[in-house]
Amino acid sequence: MTERTRLTRLKERAVEDRAALLDFLAGQYVAHLAVVAGDHPVALPVAYALDREGDQLYVHGSVAAGWLREAPGAQVCVTVTSVDGLVLARSGFHHSMNYRSAVVIGAARLVEDEDERARALDLVVDQVVPGRAATLRPPTRKELVATAVLAVPLAEASLKQRTGGVGDEPEDVEAGTWAGVLPLRVVAGEVETDPLTARPVPSDVAARAAELGR
Amino acid sequence: MTERTRLTRLKERAVEDRAALLDFLAGQYVAHLAVVAGDHPVALPVAYALDREGDQLYVHGSVAAGWLREAPGAQVCVTVTSVDGLVLARSGFHHSMNYRSAVVIGAARLVEDEDERARALDLVVDQVVPGRAATLRPPTRKELVATAVLAVPLAEASLKQRTGGVGDEPEDVEAGTWAGVLPLRVVAGEVETDPLTARPVPSDVAARAAELGR
Repeated sequence: MTERTRLTRLKERAVEDRAALLDFLAGQYVAHLAVVAGDHPVALPVAYALDREGDQLYVHGSVAAGWLREAPGAQVCVTVTSVDGLVLARSGFHHSMNYRSAVVIGAARLVEDEDERARALDLVVDQVVPGRAATLRPPTRKELVATAVLAVPLAEASLKQRTGGVGDEPEDVEAGTWAGVLPLRVVAGEVETDPLTARPVPSDVAARAAELGR
Repeated sequence: MTERTRLTRLKERAVEDRAALLDFLAGQYVAHLAVVAGDHPVALPVAYALDREGDQLYVHGSVAAGWLREAPGAQVCVTVTSVDGLVLARSGFHHSMNYRSAVVIGAARLVEDEDERARALDLVVDQVVPGRAATLRPPTRKELVATAVLAVPLAEASLKQRTGGVGDEPEDVEAGTWAGVLPLRVVAGEVETDPLTARPVPSDVAARAAELGR
């Protein structure tokens, strides 16, 4: 964590444990990638992968996406957030959310080495369904040409979270207003197998569905 | 929609219907607010409210939050995303996600009028649980001083979405690889009433929990 990712307030919400940051990034699959495009910032949802070995994140996108062309060499912000609950306090002021949010700021590097590109694209698939990349054909030359892969170092990264119940003023508790937490989670529904597929759901997909279906 | 929010690719994914944009923004409660802070962008999760009447979004935060101090008068991006499914195609290249994502770019206005500030803060509470603001005491002077409210116009806003099944190459379909979609949704668990509350769960919270619990 550096000056740019050090939290300026609510320091108790910062999670100093590097392992917790990495575990959180390993368990999610959507990030918001923010870039500066001319006079304004743009943040868009992207698939990403955690590369523990390289201590970096990979994001990828179409080379035709204008905003992605802004990123190579530029400072970007990759934010991964899980909303875990609505904190319904006794005052508007103390309303909050339980959440975990990792913020990574750094210079995006355009990945050009073909081996690294192939590995990064596999990692992005495996971030969504661990083990699936190995069950797919390799990308074609045409597909590789159409895909931009960026690496963002995890050198400047922080994890912030809020957990637990409401934090109300004593007088509001005495006044008797109702308060509580509505927990939220992402749940997978039934796997929708493509009608053109004759095969059963593969074990890696079934395992992922079971994990997300709890 | 203006040049800055016009989609440069996959135009079929742009939703031109203004009503669909507003309905989507009405149904969510977390945004990522991106600002430019010195030499880099920062995107952080925030609660927000749709103000249909004023055709704008409100976001709020602590006046002590450094990144929020960058926003007044500056160009910001507010992105609201719902991830609706994992699209598990027959090739890595065609892996995708079903999602809806609204992107709003504009100059953030610091809301200073006390009446507008009070209304905006109520809207933020009601965005989370419709009707709840009216059941709470009004904010104190101290709370208002500690809170920054920003308005971002919806003049430059777009909604992008992907729905449906996989879009694979014919030769990959012939090869027989399994493909399908794993639908995802956010689900509320049981309401966790604060132990210091003697009252039953109010009807607005129960309604919201039921709506999110489906």
